[in-house]
Amino acid sequence: MPPQLILAMRPELPHGLLRPEHWQRLERVTRIPFREALTDFDTPHATTLLADTEIILAGWNCPPITESVLARAPKLKLVAYAAATVKYFASPALWASGVVVTSSHVPMAVPVAEFTLAAILFCGKDTFRFIAEHRASRGLKGTDTRASWDNPRIGNFGKRIGIVGASRIGRMVIAHLQRFDMQIRVYDPFLSPDEATRLGVEQSSLIDLMAWSDIVSLHAPAIPTTRHMIGRTELAAMRDGAYLINTARGWLIDHEALEVELASRRINAFIDTPLPDPLPPESRFYDMPNVTLTPHLAGAQGNELWRMADLAVEEIERHVAGLPPLAPVCAEDLDHIA
Amino acid sequence: MPPQLILAMRPELPHGLLRPEHWQRLERVTRIPFREALTDFDTPHATTLLADTEIILAGWNCPPITESVLARAPKLKLVAYAAATVKYFASPALWASGVVVTSSHVPMAVPVAEFTLAAILFCGKDTFRFIAEHRASRGLKGTDTRASWDNPRIGNFGKRIGIVGASRIGRMVIAHLQRFDMQIRVYDPFLSPDEATRLGVEQSSLIDLMAWSDIVSLHAPAIPTTRHMIGRTELAAMRDGAYLINTARGWLIDHEALEVELASRRINAFIDTPLPDPLPPESRFYDMPNVTLTPHLAGAQGNELWRMADLAVEEIERHVAGLPPLAPVCAEDLDHIA
Repeated sequence: MPPQLILAMRPELPHGLLRPEHWQRLERVTRIPFREALTDFDTPHATTLLADTEIILAGWNCPPITESVLARAPKLKLVAYAAATVKYFASPALWASGVVVTSSHVPMAVPVAEFTLAAILFCGKDTFRFIAEHRASRGLKGTDTRASWDNPRIGNFGKRIGIVGASRIGRMVIAHLQRFDMQIRVYDPFLSPDEATRLGVEQSSLIDLMAWSDIVSLHAPAIPTTRHMIGRTELAAMRDGAYLINTARGWLIDHEALEVELASRRINAFIDTPLPDPLPPESRFYDMPNVTLTPHLAGAQGNELWRMADLAVEEIERHVAGLPPLAPVCAEDLDHIA
Repeated sequence: MPPQLILAMRPELPHGLLRPEHWQRLERVTRIPFREALTDFDTPHATTLLADTEIILAGWNCPPITESVLARAPKLKLVAYAAATVKYFASPALWASGVVVTSSHVPMAVPVAEFTLAAILFCGKDTFRFIAEHRASRGLKGTDTRASWDNPRIGNFGKRIGIVGASRIGRMVIAHLQRFDMQIRVYDPFLSPDEATRLGVEQSSLIDLMAWSDIVSLHAPAIPTTRHMIGRTELAAMRDGAYLINTARGWLIDHEALEVELASRRINAFIDTPLPDPLPPESRFYDMPNVTLTPHLAGAQGNELWRMADLAVEEIERHVAGLPPLAPVCAEDLDHIA
């Protein structure tokens, strides 16, 4: 008898997450008594299902897997999470239980790094300012880009890119940028000189990185020690006209200090992940010509969910085949990952 | 006595184009009697300079090098053009004269390919629409991108990218895209199957490419045979919601047909190079929510000019050292290059 699998995530998510081929692969190796997503483990229906469940395919908004859930799921062996951050649903009891937890961190990192690359390339040419001026003036202003011929701050040749955090995403961004004629420095207190050499990047203190960079891109995890790591001092150190890109978490930036610095128009920002996210309608950020806001778009969207499902389904296939997991998450990792 | 060099380009251009190090390199191997740019070869001053000139360092808006100019420049051996298209200033007499003409085509292609890559990555996630909706609604609309979780047309995973023209820029774009999980096809009537295999792309007819692609990016040269190659039929073949990206030349597209197709909102466009360029203020393109206009920004701007100067100065150094040119342009190339 194949092991029983249940789904636990937002109710509308399976439709976008799982393609017919994913269902076929799951049905080949598991038994799926209920094809909808559980959103609450504390119903009688969920309790009945849990009693015989070996595998949970989890996704965004997975309900917490508490001691009580584990007590009712004696056969549980694998939680395959088809997204990145498992912290919000994984209880200490889950980590203590010996149940394997896998994450689609890597497939989630891919679109974030791609989106960040595009943001860097466009910010490097002041593209968003040019788009806005061109449209608002109907081609009369900002059109003659020849006005920027002698502005050495425009363009991506030799651009100084400062990467904050040599995380999985940070390293992917670095690898992308190394194809271009750019200078790259990185700040990461956990990065050893050997690793930096292997990555082919120069290391820097945070404050020096802020002062050196034309574009600063944040890729640090949201953990207690990184809260407001970009504060008034770091922002004040940035070069005139420099860009701050945040596709990580608003947690990293003191947004009051950021608002003051941006209001002066001395620096520019591209923000996918403000705090709060989304910003309230009365936020001044919406009105700033030197700010580009994207609505939490860098992470997996649409077809990019399939890449996360690909890995989660593979983890399930490997589990059933008795193979070790590709991307297990351990309790010890939690201190330094998002 | 080192050979004499003069500059011929827009008057304000040398300031942005040439860094101090470029001047130093030029002064090491040539004699520069006049450090400003000539904008007209038919003045007494120009005629005096031409009499002794062996090298012209040319740039945008170089005046035509006609038979009359050549007659007054008997020592001329090299025209090093620090930009891409030489056609507008190079006369038949120049091609017949044996004077070597070099071009910074490749360093001009680099930023265009980078910009196009960024445009593809952002169009793949409907980024410009999200930015506009997010700002206009102050975070109330278009913010919950979870609405696009089950929209498989959003996202760059497995995206179908159609490249029109395996030109220098087209090939650079292909090389960039091959780092991503995308599908790439190319239309180019001059591309042999062997070359396509080497490039690692699948070939297609133009109409099939238009019908297959999520994003079509134009990289064909503006030559007589490519005028309006993207017309009503090609546009009608595009998938609903597909994107047309033009960082090449407006010449390639029937803009009347494009306006009709875009007005229906069936497809989207990202246009850096419309026709005319810039569009007149009354153009409807400025008002279309499914159109992103950038003001001829893809090509070299600001510091990106230095990369073109690097090559032109190197061509001059090589000429003086008796070495062959790196990027000569021949009369025979003119039929199929921009």
